[in-house]
Amino acid sequence: MQFQLTSDFIENIAQLIAKKDGNALREVLQDFHFADIAELLEELKSGQATYLIKQLESDLTSEALMELDDDVREKILERLSPKEIAAELEELDTDDAADIIAELDEKIQQKVIDKIEDQEHAADIVELLKYDEDTAGALMAKELVQVKETWTVAGCVREMRRQAENVTRVHSIYVTNKEGKLTGRLSLKDLLTAEAKTKISDVFIPKVDYVTVHTENEEVARIMQKYDLEAIPVVDDNGILMGRITIDDIVDFIKDEAEKDYQMAAGISQDVEADDGILTLTKARLPWLFLGLLGGVGAAFIMGGFEEILNKHAILLLFTPLIAAMAGNVGVQSSAIIVQGLANDDVKGSIGNRLLKEMFLAMLNGAALSIVLFFFIWAWKGTIDYGLSISISLFVVIIVAGIIGTFIPLFLDKRGVDPAIATGPFITTSNDIFGILIYLWIAKMILGI
Amino acid sequence: MQFQLTSDFIENIAQLIAKKDGNALREVLQDFHFADIAELLEELKSGQATYLIKQLESDLTSEALMELDDDVREKILERLSPKEIAAELEELDTDDAADIIAELDEKIQQKVIDKIEDQEHAADIVELLKYDEDTAGALMAKELVQVKETWTVAGCVREMRRQAENVTRVHSIYVTNKEGKLTGRLSLKDLLTAEAKTKISDVFIPKVDYVTVHTENEEVARIMQKYDLEAIPVVDDNGILMGRITIDDIVDFIKDEAEKDYQMAAGISQDVEADDGILTLTKARLPWLFLGLLGGVGAAFIMGGFEEILNKHAILLLFTPLIAAMAGNVGVQSSAIIVQGLANDDVKGSIGNRLLKEMFLAMLNGAALSIVLFFFIWAWKGTIDYGLSISISLFVVIIVAGIIGTFIPLFLDKRGVDPAIATGPFITTSNDIFGILIYLWIAKMILGI
Repeated sequence: MQFQLTSDFIENIAQLIAKKDGNALREVLQDFHFADIAELLEELKSGQATYLIKQLESDLTSEALMELDDDVREKILERLSPKEIAAELEELDTDDAADIIAELDEKIQQKVIDKIEDQEHAADIVELLKYDEDTAGALMAKELVQVKETWTVAGCVREMRRQAENVTRVHSIYVTNKEGKLTGRLSLKDLLTAEAKTKISDVFIPKVDYVTVHTENEEVARIMQKYDLEAIPVVDDNGILMGRITIDDIVDFIKDEAEKDYQMAAGISQDVEADDGILTLTKARLPWLFLGLLGGVGAAFIMGGFEEILNKHAILLLFTPLIAAMAGNVGVQSSAIIVQGLANDDVKGSIGNRLLKEMFLAMLNGAALSIVLFFFIWAWKGTIDYGLSISISLFVVIIVAGIIGTFIPLFLDKRGVDPAIATGPFITTSNDIFGILIYLWIAKMILGI
Repeated sequence: MQFQLTSDFIENIAQLIAKKDGNALREVLQDFHFADIAELLEELKSGQATYLIKQLESDLTSEALMELDDDVREKILERLSPKEIAAELEELDTDDAADIIAELDEKIQQKVIDKIEDQEHAADIVELLKYDEDTAGALMAKELVQVKETWTVAGCVREMRRQAENVTRVHSIYVTNKEGKLTGRLSLKDLLTAEAKTKISDVFIPKVDYVTVHTENEEVARIMQKYDLEAIPVVDDNGILMGRITIDDIVDFIKDEAEKDYQMAAGISQDVEADDGILTLTKARLPWLFLGLLGGVGAAFIMGGFEEILNKHAILLLFTPLIAAMAGNVGVQSSAIIVQGLANDDVKGSIGNRLLKEMFLAMLNGAALSIVLFFFIWAWKGTIDYGLSISISLFVVIIVAGIIGTFIPLFLDKRGVDPAIATGPFITTSNDIFGILIYLWIAKMILGI
């Protein structure tokens, strides 16, 4: 049942485009799902994609445009006239239309809006553009089904038929009072089972979760997940119903956030993809690598400062990569658990308790690892002195690394900084340096100069 | 409007539980949302939580049970009788009920099922238990609204009123033929706007996305996301409509997958949380740390093998942590981009092309970093020889690290292994060793012994 995009098919479409055979293209692609059209567009050159979009119906291409990667969409929009863009926007829900407008050059934005024929639709889009990015106001759509408390069920069904025309999916029916304030909701089930003459005020559910236009996306996602909501109404500061947010937008948001955290942990600083160009990828990767380089040079300087003891006990140098690696690994583990816990609102209790717990944990792990290392070195070099001093150093380094890995994200979070930046290269690099410093310092104490 | 769980409130509830004041508890908590009840239960001791569950209505507590962490729920279920568990399951949708049964001891499972009063509900749950975990069959719920092609719109609304009783949310109405085969769907909008006497066969949409009971969860999630579906019907091998999967289950699945990948990248091998016990956390962390230890010991052995050159050019040892760190960082970056690309179905083209691209990318990054390092060493030590040999080594190490980081996840994916295990400690450790080996080998060639 699923559509599979083959290279033969793409070739076929490319040929029809080259022949400028609009009729054949429409015939082949008419019944396609917009998500499949989007996949096809991604594979075409932007000139070809633009031609194709002009040939197909806007109700198909507008949704396909929404599915495209930002950079692919940008290139296509550049080739469309304001009027052609406006035609696509007519077909989209206000939230999607506003997203596309926001991506356009400021000069073109007004021209496109002027070309939208449906005045109400245009006004709604302009309203959505006012809100701060990352807030419920910018995320919501104006399309929703709204009924008044004073109506009857029959009147409500009549009015819903009219409103439903503009609403792709009816999740919930929102009930408002005369002033437009949100007072409750009505389930479709209740509407189906109630008598025609019943007043809405007698059957509606006065308890309804909502957010305001200023609520941050992250909070919206948290509420919708916690309460298993598929749509949530958005009100202004006076409680007036302004729009609604649906779960599909939140799914995208959750995925984006998870990917961002993952990339940060891997030391990739921008939102890049495997298919991006080499320059884009370099811009996202090089800064973190420079940080790592700086850390490595720092470690070299530190080791240079311990020249005397290192000359006498050269074996110590063989284990610096081990110490640095363990400090890094423990730090990444600790910070990842905290970052994930913070994201899930799962980290309770004081920072002090959290650090104490991590210390015990690190002591347990550190003891196990240090004992193994001790026997390794003993078996290899045959001396207890070296085994002892390196193992004890490892033990201390693991504890310190665990505490740093726990403390930094908690500290950043308290300061209102995204704790995810503490994972990955940042924690690895700082722990490398701390680790080597502690290692050499302890070895010096135990072995003497 | 949002509920905030305070320690005063928890204390208050704990006291009412201690006093065994069921009436007061019911009064306070009656109107709470189940998600808030779940938050409260997580904060109580399992004895307290069990008492509370027995006091409150099953329609509230059953949903709250579903929201709990697995381990908290397990402890509570252990304290409930089969009859009490059955009472909770009566209130749940079949998919959630089956999930809970699957968590129980096999001996107790049958006892609980026998105590479920609604025979049809019990049979549905038993049916769901048959399907393999991680397939659509195990994920779906039996609750859905189903109408026959031959009915009229009026008959359909009548029947829907009956069916809707058991369905929490009506997403779509599925249309079947006489044999129960899925033939299409009906939107609520169409139902609202059609004439009462119209036949369903005249208004239904014959195109409907579906999956089979054997489709894997990952594929279900991909399809629902791609086509922006909020529910998808599930059919058996004969096309008979068996159940449906709703978007909220997919949201949970997406989140779990993202968290798993993130944890693997951070070197945490099981599904753990910040609030888990020290032993659980150790079990999840220690194996990866042992891997790191092994890598470190391996690096030490390798360096031991280059004793002669290291004795002569001790400065080389100062930069081994830098080389190891850079090899690790580059490897993690490369593998993370590939793993994420694979997860999003975004990696196209041959492995060869992919490796070539990564090579160019690594050469660009490597050149920039090596030049900087060269000038650092030159400025520090005043000799071109060392700067040159260490920088050239870094350049080669970065390229090799990038290629390994790209190749391993692609190779694992081709073999059907989850590529995410290639990220994190695995790639860091192997790159540490490769990096140091290449570094010393190149330095030896350039500097001579």
